[in-house]
Amino acid sequence: MSDRMRIAINTGGGDAPGLNAVIEAVVLSAYNKNWEVYGIKQGYHGLLDTEDIIRLDPNKVRNISNLGGTILGTTNKGNPFEMPVENIAGEVEKRDLSDRVVQNFHRLGLDCLIAVGGDGSLKIAHDFHKKGIPVIGVPKTIDNDLSGTVVTFGFDTAVSIATEAIDRLHSTAKSHDRVLVVEVMGRNAGWIALNSGVSGGAKVILIPEIPFDMDLVCEKIMEGEVMGERYAIVVVAEGAVPLGGRIVHKGSGEAGRQEVVLGGIGEVVAQSIAAKTGKDTRSLVLGHLQRGGSPTTFDRLLALRFGAMAIRLVEEGKFGHMVALAPPNVSSVPLEDAIGTSKQVPMDSDTLRTAKDIGISFGAPE
Amino acid sequence: MSDRMRIAINTGGGDAPGLNAVIEAVVLSAYNKNWEVYGIKQGYHGLLDTEDIIRLDPNKVRNISNLGGTILGTTNKGNPFEMPVENIAGEVEKRDLSDRVVQNFHRLGLDCLIAVGGDGSLKIAHDFHKKGIPVIGVPKTIDNDLSGTVVTFGFDTAVSIATEAIDRLHSTAKSHDRVLVVEVMGRNAGWIALNSGVSGGAKVILIPEIPFDMDLVCEKIMEGEVMGERYAIVVVAEGAVPLGGRIVHKGSGEAGRQEVVLGGIGEVVAQSIAAKTGKDTRSLVLGHLQRGGSPTTFDRLLALRFGAMAIRLVEEGKFGHMVALAPPNVSSVPLEDAIGTSKQVPMDSDTLRTAKDIGISFGAPE
Amino acid sequence: MSDRMRIAINTGGGDAPGLNAVIEAVVLSAYNKNWEVYGIKQGYHGLLDTEDIIRLDPNKVRNISNLGGTILGTTNKGNPFEMPVENIAGEVEKRDLSDRVVQNFHRLGLDCLIAVGGDGSLKIAHDFHKKGIPVIGVPKTIDNDLSGTVVTFGFDTAVSIATEAIDRLHSTAKSHDRVLVVEVMGRNAGWIALNSGVSGGAKVILIPEIPFDMDLVCEKIMEGEVMGERYAIVVVAEGAVPLGGRIVHKGSGEAGRQEVVLGGIGEVVAQSIAAKTGKDTRSLVLGHLQRGGSPTTFDRLLALRFGAMAIRLVEEGKFGHMVALAPPNVSSVPLEDAIGTSKQVPMDSDTLRTAKDIGISFGAPE
Amino acid sequence: MSDRMRIAINTGGGDAPGLNAVIEAVVLSAYNKNWEVYGIKQGYHGLLDTEDIIRLDPNKVRNISNLGGTILGTTNKGNPFEMPVENIAGEVEKRDLSDRVVQNFHRLGLDCLIAVGGDGSLKIAHDFHKKGIPVIGVPKTIDNDLSGTVVTFGFDTAVSIATEAIDRLHSTAKSHDRVLVVEVMGRNAGWIALNSGVSGGAKVILIPEIPFDMDLVCEKIMEGEVMGERYAIVVVAEGAVPLGGRIVHKGSGEAGRQEVVLGGIGEVVAQSIAAKTGKDTRSLVLGHLQRGGSPTTFDRLLALRFGAMAIRLVEEGKFGHMVALAPPNVSSVPLEDAIGTSKQVPMDSDTLRTAKDIGISFGAPE
Repeated sequence: MSDRMRIAINTGGGDAPGLNAVIEAVVLSAYNKNWEVYGIKQGYHGLLDTEDIIRLDPNKVRNISNLGGTILGTTNKGNPFEMPVENIAGEVEKRDLSDRVVQNFHRLGLDCLIAVGGDGSLKIAHDFHKKGIPVIGVPKTIDNDLSGTVVTFGFDTAVSIATEAIDRLHSTAKSHDRVLVVEVMGRNAGWIALNSGVSGGAKVILIPEIPFDMDLVCEKIMEGEVMGERYAIVVVAEGAVPLGGRIVHKGSGEAGRQEVVLGGIGEVVAQSIAAKTGKDTRSLVLGHLQRGGSPTTFDRLLALRFGAMAIRLVEEGKFGHMVALAPPNVSSVPLEDAIGTSKQVPMDSDTLRTAKDIGISFGAPE
Repeated sequence: MSDRMRIAINTGGGDAPGLNAVIEAVVLSAYNKNWEVYGIKQGYHGLLDTEDIIRLDPNKVRNISNLGGTILGTTNKGNPFEMPVENIAGEVEKRDLSDRVVQNFHRLGLDCLIAVGGDGSLKIAHDFHKKGIPVIGVPKTIDNDLSGTVVTFGFDTAVSIATEAIDRLHSTAKSHDRVLVVEVMGRNAGWIALNSGVSGGAKVILIPEIPFDMDLVCEKIMEGEVMGERYAIVVVAEGAVPLGGRIVHKGSGEAGRQEVVLGGIGEVVAQSIAAKTGKDTRSLVLGHLQRGGSPTTFDRLLALRFGAMAIRLVEEGKFGHMVALAPPNVSSVPLEDAIGTSKQVPMDSDTLRTAKDIGISFGAPE
Repeated sequence: MSDRMRIAINTGGGDAPGLNAVIEAVVLSAYNKNWEVYGIKQGYHGLLDTEDIIRLDPNKVRNISNLGGTILGTTNKGNPFEMPVENIAGEVEKRDLSDRVVQNFHRLGLDCLIAVGGDGSLKIAHDFHKKGIPVIGVPKTIDNDLSGTVVTFGFDTAVSIATEAIDRLHSTAKSHDRVLVVEVMGRNAGWIALNSGVSGGAKVILIPEIPFDMDLVCEKIMEGEVMGERYAIVVVAEGAVPLGGRIVHKGSGEAGRQEVVLGGIGEVVAQSIAAKTGKDTRSLVLGHLQRGGSPTTFDRLLALRFGAMAIRLVEEGKFGHMVALAPPNVSSVPLEDAIGTSKQVPMDSDTLRTAKDIGISFGAPE
Repeated sequence: MSDRMRIAINTGGGDAPGLNAVIEAVVLSAYNKNWEVYGIKQGYHGLLDTEDIIRLDPNKVRNISNLGGTILGTTNKGNPFEMPVENIAGEVEKRDLSDRVVQNFHRLGLDCLIAVGGDGSLKIAHDFHKKGIPVIGVPKTIDNDLSGTVVTFGFDTAVSIATEAIDRLHSTAKSHDRVLVVEVMGRNAGWIALNSGVSGGAKVILIPEIPFDMDLVCEKIMEGEVMGERYAIVVVAEGAVPLGGRIVHKGSGEAGRQEVVLGGIGEVVAQSIAAKTGKDTRSLVLGHLQRGGSPTTFDRLLALRFGAMAIRLVEEGKFGHMVALAPPNVSSVPLEDAIGTSKQVPMDSDTLRTAKDIGISFGAPE
């Protein structure tokens, strides 16, 4: 290891609260060791177009830990290993530009790369590691679907925002005797829906891990009606699926001829509840509100700890590893252990059991 | 006036943060005068079905000012003067049940009614006033479209929630070089859009009062692009309309045959921006998040002041009047002055001028 | 007026949420007119030491409206008209350095000064106006004690923070059957105490405008005890005074010999309540929490409007005037009308009447 | 186990956000099993005076999870095993009233007790367990000083409130070039100070686990001064102690004669910094703000999970055990393992290392 390491850092994939906190801790920790840090802009794009690199010193990052977004930008422009490029004929074809990234990396005299990202970005990081760039991964996902770490930053914020939204909807639902359906993020995992639904007091939670039966959903809602609770909150994960496949909602075309799914799964569920129960039912998609803005204190601190740990891993030379949380401490796992499989809610999850214990329905037989 | 007034109170129309604070102040103020307060449940329905009335004493209302919703419930079930009722043939017809309300009011020995509501509910209140029920109105609207009062409770909360959402979207828009379109409430007025758009740093704000030209909207966005601001927030009032009428968005039917508007105006604007500028553009509808949950301190205090003022108006015998805000004090105006016309953003509005001064576009020629 | 105005702006006195929003709107509005803006650092110090001036363009201020503090810094270092300066003998004497400020102002080719500040800073601004610097004032105070404007930015945030604190204390007070005394800011006015106390459901509010009688305070607390409310929140303005002058609290010196006031008025009131009622009583001083951090949306928007209005006043040549709020619009008043007298809570204040109506005691006979 | 368990629940010790969420989950979970739950008021007092017991059913607890405090009340009135009681002579003596508690417990036909509390309350619970009351403990502390569980509810909220306060103070400190000293809770452990100090970007953190040297504290502050950071936040745990014992601050008595400590350790540190560095320095005690009010979503969910787990432990008959968090799941540990030792920040704590890595000083040699 050189006396004065030159460390690159980038952030990739979807926005997540805490990215700037990782950057802050990386830069301040490196500064304390008299090392240099260079920020690669826009994921890996900054290493294709080498102009997009900035020297990061303490003055540039101090107290950014509470700011949403990432000062380095992120990107959905594609994977350098199969980058969409327009050829002379005007057609888009995928080309492998990874060698150019590696060459630029070495030409700039960089010693290693700290890659902050979700499963997609970490997979790319791992591929670059195999091509000779010493890489340390830092896991990031609001969806909590990454293996190898108990949790990562971004998730607590997403759950908190969703819970606060549910709280707000509660009072309106109650004042109007309404059913309110909230669609939350989570990709193919139900973590955000489960945690925010339990916290916010939902009556029904629909998650990808448990295919739901619309009749059971409506039964649960009408059961509350009988008990005098004339309103309900239903939380639906964006990846939730009905038993036996996809709900198809009839559009406004000629009868029987045309079927169009209007809106996402939340709207579909809402329309189905309205049709089956006769209750005034509304739906809402939280969308990008869940991934922007300031992190919760929990995520901010976790991200700072992850950033500092990344520099410790550099010091230890544990390249090819990813920072992970093994409460109460942080640790590390090989990158390849983390990127293969997505983490869904297991059926013996304690939070899932809690939900069932306190009477929340998942639209499935007990 | 009897020694011991028996005061009824109801809340009508859409949910608004601050309703419970009005109720709290009405009950505590009346208690101090040794008067009785009765809560009518579900708007006017509690006076159709007289079981739905509860005695309110201090213990029932203390410290509810911060709770969202209304402990009395509200309703959209209809106007007692033209109530939808199913007849023997199973058809729904509108019937005037107002006499029954008046009879029940008197039979219960009630002396007056404090009606908390928006323009619809206050219009009904005024009609009952003309039928002999002594009424005091308390204005409520998150949309700020009520005449006769500078502002009323609910609006500050709605603007705050919308602004906080815009703040969250900012960081994501910036990290991803995206355009984010946010559709906010406001009915036929642009107040929420204007105030949250200016506060949150929108680049474009579309309001009903200023029909917009999609080309000018896109020009503004691309102008930012040239200046290096590769992202933008566009705030769209739900009542915003394009110059020359409605945007029609092509659905997925057979070419040219079928035109379906998918989603609200926000989604339409987003799709149009994406098509015209090629920018990655997403839309979000804030919906009921804007009207539920705890009030801001501003709304909570205003609602408490309105509730106390309502009791003072009862004491002064100013029936047929509505509480109003004439900063820094509260005052009152005749109900009929308030209910006729809806208040839109005037072209000489100071906030509108501020928006233009700081470079925000309304999608119209200057 | 020159074609291309060169406008200076400074911020003076205590921190207030919204200062950066004023700066943002001033700079963006001026930019739209093709004018230049220069930020004077540290109040008037940047014009004594002319190095401390920075050119402000849109990129430096965009989206700072939500940040607490002021990017220009502020100062308590003194008034340029009577600046404490150490002389050769090492003694501190006050010297009038105002000519130097005026000379530097003109030497830099500045056309006018937008001075954002409270009564102290605005008084200095007015003095410079009389010495030939064209000045526009922008009122700033968290205490709401400025005449000439219905309200100004900073106050809503301070009241909100104090109310949120009271809400938090409520649950602890109730769980433990305690009296909690909260001391809030406000200088010689009771606005923050009054508004946060009413919003937060205090049982007693002590303000400078109404000298309090400790026995009446304790009577009120014990009256609640009888009614089954075994806890109470008491809000005390930092400037509150007991009837007949200052409470002196006995310190730990020899009996009768030494009297020391420990802590502020909040602590004194708490100890007195504990002694007289035997209730478990705790006190808390909110202090600087009330003046730091992000503004509420209300304050942020008001500050943006004030900033834009300041530029309009420059355009109209209304120097010597101060921006003011005359709801629903902003207007202006002569600086000298604003700076003379501090605005206290009038005895016919609607909020004060509300407090009394809902049963809050001010520790004085009704 | 009887078919229809009759479960008692109480909450003891200091207020902590999340107590109501535990109660909600206990009641809803029990209801699902057709068991009964009885709330004991005021810690163990409800079992001394048996009037103070209420039947809890779902309607009494639904959606209280977000409310601060505890609907059962808590108490500091003393330990039933050594209760302060006034004897005939008017002297206070400690008496063992535990038999009366046990008798009442059995007389009421209760089957077990879920005791929610900190180390003091859990110690008492364990003593009752040894006297024949089947007990399940649920750990509660904002201070994070309980052994046997990685963390418990209340702590995340306390850290979040402290961090938000530090964020607010940052802007004021920076605007005024000030040092701001914040004293936070934590008893004999530094967890709140450490976590909020790292999250909030403190320059110095003083915790009980690391005795501090005032000269090193001031060195750190002046080091920032040289680097152009003319302000600093110092976070002090209430239990922090200087190297070699207690700082004594000179009071206003005659020189050398009298030494009085004014205020807490935060004020003492602030005065010392002001004296040694000449910087404008202020101090603030957060106090009870840290333990009241709504829980964060993290704490709310954790508390709900703990409540549901408590009922599962009842079902399994694991009396004498305490619910614990072993991420990602909840588990249980014997009560006696949890109550003996208080958990301080270990020197190899990952967060402590993070703090040092990013340049935060603890006022001690590295």
